[in-house]
Amino acid sequence: MQNYKAPQRDTLFTLYELLGFESHYADLGFEEVSNDLVTAIFSEAAKFAENTLAPINAVGDEEGCGFDNGVVTTPTGFKEAYQQYVEGGWPSMAHPEEYGGQALPYSLATSMAEWFSGANHSWAMYPGLSQGCMETLKAHGTDKQREMFLHKLVEGSWTGTMCLTEPHCGSDLGMLKCKAEPNDDGTYSLTGTKIFISAGEHDMSENIVHIVLARLPDAPAGTKGISLFIVPKYHVDENGEKGERNTVVCGSIEHKMGIKGSATCVMNFDGAKGHLIGEPNRGLNCMFTFMNMARIGTGMEGLSAIEAAFQGALAYAKDRLQFRSLTGRKNESGPADPIIVHPDVRRMLLTQKSLREGCRALAIYCMKMVDVTLYEKDAEKRQIADAKLALLTPIVKAFLTETAQECTSYGMQVYGGHGYIKEWGMEQLARDTRICTMYEGTTGIQAIDLLARKVVGSQGKLLQVFTQEIRTYCASLRDKQQFNAWANAVESHVDEWEQLTNDIMKSAANNPDELGAAAVDYLMYSGYVSVSYFWLQMAVTAQQKLDEGSTEVDFYQAKLQSAQFYFDRMLTRTRSLVSAIHSGADNLMSMSEEAFYQG
Amino acid sequence: MQNYKAPQRDTLFTLYELLGFESHYADLGFEEVSNDLVTAIFSEAAKFAENTLAPINAVGDEEGCGFDNGVVTTPTGFKEAYQQYVEGGWPSMAHPEEYGGQALPYSLATSMAEWFSGANHSWAMYPGLSQGCMETLKAHGTDKQREMFLHKLVEGSWTGTMCLTEPHCGSDLGMLKCKAEPNDDGTYSLTGTKIFISAGEHDMSENIVHIVLARLPDAPAGTKGISLFIVPKYHVDENGEKGERNTVVCGSIEHKMGIKGSATCVMNFDGAKGHLIGEPNRGLNCMFTFMNMARIGTGMEGLSAIEAAFQGALAYAKDRLQFRSLTGRKNESGPADPIIVHPDVRRMLLTQKSLREGCRALAIYCMKMVDVTLYEKDAEKRQIADAKLALLTPIVKAFLTETAQECTSYGMQVYGGHGYIKEWGMEQLARDTRICTMYEGTTGIQAIDLLARKVVGSQGKLLQVFTQEIRTYCASLRDKQQFNAWANAVESHVDEWEQLTNDIMKSAANNPDELGAAAVDYLMYSGYVSVSYFWLQMAVTAQQKLDEGSTEVDFYQAKLQSAQFYFDRMLTRTRSLVSAIHSGADNLMSMSEEAFYQG
Repeated sequence: MQNYKAPQRDTLFTLYELLGFESHYADLGFEEVSNDLVTAIFSEAAKFAENTLAPINAVGDEEGCGFDNGVVTTPTGFKEAYQQYVEGGWPSMAHPEEYGGQALPYSLATSMAEWFSGANHSWAMYPGLSQGCMETLKAHGTDKQREMFLHKLVEGSWTGTMCLTEPHCGSDLGMLKCKAEPNDDGTYSLTGTKIFISAGEHDMSENIVHIVLARLPDAPAGTKGISLFIVPKYHVDENGEKGERNTVVCGSIEHKMGIKGSATCVMNFDGAKGHLIGEPNRGLNCMFTFMNMARIGTGMEGLSAIEAAFQGALAYAKDRLQFRSLTGRKNESGPADPIIVHPDVRRMLLTQKSLREGCRALAIYCMKMVDVTLYEKDAEKRQIADAKLALLTPIVKAFLTETAQECTSYGMQVYGGHGYIKEWGMEQLARDTRICTMYEGTTGIQAIDLLARKVVGSQGKLLQVFTQEIRTYCASLRDKQQFNAWANAVESHVDEWEQLTNDIMKSAANNPDELGAAAVDYLMYSGYVSVSYFWLQMAVTAQQKLDEGSTEVDFYQAKLQSAQFYFDRMLTRTRSLVSAIHSGADNLMSMSEEAFYQG
Repeated sequence: MQNYKAPQRDTLFTLYELLGFESHYADLGFEEVSNDLVTAIFSEAAKFAENTLAPINAVGDEEGCGFDNGVVTTPTGFKEAYQQYVEGGWPSMAHPEEYGGQALPYSLATSMAEWFSGANHSWAMYPGLSQGCMETLKAHGTDKQREMFLHKLVEGSWTGTMCLTEPHCGSDLGMLKCKAEPNDDGTYSLTGTKIFISAGEHDMSENIVHIVLARLPDAPAGTKGISLFIVPKYHVDENGEKGERNTVVCGSIEHKMGIKGSATCVMNFDGAKGHLIGEPNRGLNCMFTFMNMARIGTGMEGLSAIEAAFQGALAYAKDRLQFRSLTGRKNESGPADPIIVHPDVRRMLLTQKSLREGCRALAIYCMKMVDVTLYEKDAEKRQIADAKLALLTPIVKAFLTETAQECTSYGMQVYGGHGYIKEWGMEQLARDTRICTMYEGTTGIQAIDLLARKVVGSQGKLLQVFTQEIRTYCASLRDKQQFNAWANAVESHVDEWEQLTNDIMKSAANNPDELGAAAVDYLMYSGYVSVSYFWLQMAVTAQQKLDEGSTEVDFYQAKLQSAQFYFDRMLTRTRSLVSAIHSGADNLMSMSEEAFYQG
């Protein structure tokens, strides 16, 4: 099995050379967060990912979680790794000092989360969910609630969850039934069943803080009658001290295709005591804070799988000898050439490579925008960043996880039959990653969020905020002849993107199903075009470094070659997407339900 | 979990209404194989698939195979199902009466194999491998060898395997090392290790007949020094009686992503006694008989997974209530609409449906060609069928298994998070099917076989045999205005297919890597175009039936609607493939091996 290596060089390239994070941090008041400091922190994160998390990844898959009468045990080594994580201070990075945090920027904590997930997707979900819980408390909790819960969460001795899904409602949260009855002391008693609760029960932390969606007795039907509650596994008093066991228990854990080291719990609330967070009936709005961050986080999981699959496939492609190159022997002394000489193997590797780097740039760009929304003082700048983030969040979630399916599949494919055997680790990657297009809102849900809610909902304005940035950048390259072809390709796609948007808006005015019919292809189109913008920038940056005489010639040369590959073979995927979008909704809607299957 | 149903109606449509099998069988001397007889046999096959094989599919995945000191045990129920299969006379269908066979056409036995695989991929591999072994014996064995081995194989009390792969050589068989030393009595002693041997050891049959590739002591290096041997688990005397144990043993079984009920064995040959089959050093040529049939068989496995995933997704899409249709409530009395009202869910279902039917037509067309090569007396007709088969075999293998990845992935995706949970059965389908693009020659290998060996190797002539048939058919539709647009689409793709071929041949003359750079996209292009030809025919046939007043209005109407979907949203995938092909090899070959990864 290939050992996972944290992609330090490429991440730092993206942060500093490509996206100018040193001045970004300085502009936001993080002057102390220098390039050097980040490099040092990342170097420690890399060690933790490579030496602690990666070695227990296969173990986690092999053992899975145990369940016995409400008690969940995590796989061998998971608890100890979590202890190390806490001792290293990792949970507290991006949280306020008043709760024991290190007050470092959000983007710093989340960009390295890619590595934890790449080394061990299952393990990384436990702290990942905790972060979601903390963000929700920070954004919507009262001072008292923050005092009660945040200290231990930031420290890491407690963990958190988000409890949304019920058996009959996944995406359609308006249907949820879990009830919250007010008690005399201002608390609430929650009753109902939640499913698919990641980290709902486990043996890593002293307490588990559940953030739960439920309905008050007098709540209106649908999404406007949902409130948000904090329900701890062990009661917590006003001083934040842990007390008796609350009546929330894990009823069972799911048997899944992958992420077997992550406990996916059925949680039964049986009059469990909870605390209302935010306004009554406004729970879904509060939840969006978490959901947007979770969606970018899920996109990062996709990216992390692309990276790991690329590393595994590349190592095998250099090692495995099979056939001779069609252009003559490349490994004269060996019995055959390494399979990396074969064009189709390179096609798979370059698909992984160009997505690994292109998607990383897109994802870290989004984290930069999150930083701006959190720390920027200028309201207009915050608003622009917010607009870009609103547009790009569903793209990051869906595009990075959909392309992760292809890339992890190639990870296996490069190995041939060996890719199917457990010991090589490639099939686990594919299984673990498969959940990413389904949880935190399926690709179809992201696509409707992008097209209907964001793009059409803003009459195209959210899109224009981003396309304007792209156009401005392309215009700035007019005198760089070397990049004219690529800049023109990006620009003409941006024109087409807006034209497609107008076409869809027009046809959807007569038939709302046109939105659903175009949505997923439109999202994938948007993904390929967005990433092309970052490939253009990466190429320009790389050429600059080469012109300045950098000694990392292979690194920067590969950026230019990967850009060529991306423009030739990835961006061209938009051709078929455009054809499909233009074909409209009739070819989907005309068939009667009964006619779908006749034997 | 959705119960698997054998797609009887659609299979019979394909055989009789679309491809004229009644006259096809009559022309080949199978006058007794009437439509009625076939329907009756298929009805029994459906029962066996649905009632015997489907119920033990999840069990097989859960339990997997056991291994203890060379002994392999299959999952609960597998042995009993095999016994039923033998008692039902299924193994003997397409074999000569002199060996106890029923002398029915090849296509009859293999078209129903789709159902066995659809109900239980793992189980179906045991008899599937046996068929490969029998075909090899029939084609290349001496009379004596056939007498010794075929009776019991045809009866089913013995099973067979094909032993090709070794640890250091998968596709590149020229590197194989297994040795065969001649004995004084005309037999050979085989020594070496074979891996990935499906059904290499198990508890279903009294003896296992291995067909093994090995090298004679004086053999030339490479593929021209490989011979083929019969090596039985228990020695067999000249009368076909089983004797003592031979020195071939199973060393271990693989732990795999899927097909866990299928024993994938490491087989150790330790001076095992074998019989040369065919000429010395011509083993690879003999193996091609098996390999071509196995490739179509693997394509059928892909098809079977598309079918099963479609059935599962469709049932859930009709049942699961989530959100309202954007065009108004469709399920007024319920809390939400079934998700089949949503365009994107339909997009996934129609992708499955249009491939299920289009790929079935392509596959059964190939079986018709196999029949012609086996039973036709006219040499020219045999030659034409052989040419079409040579062209289409790699397409069927790779296109049906690649699209099966997408369709089984959609099977899960339609279920949302539930698709990831084992109890629904959709994730098993995806895992089981994942092997199909890798074994029996990866997609990359099929693509090179198609483009380099078949198309360019014949200077385009093999392609023309098929495109001429398509052109003739399209021309015959000129007066059917309703079909002009689709016929024109097929014709213009056929023009483009030939043009692409010429372009590639030209560029490959200067740089052979151009073949590898184009190959997989060219294969997928060829698949989409080939299937479009069958969708055109299916639409014309369906309209004819409707015009004739058929009462199966839903069935035929759905064919026309599925054709519309296919032409609008599947055939248009060729646009991006053409762009990628035209981009050439440079964007794949320019990067140095070292530059691929720099951290």
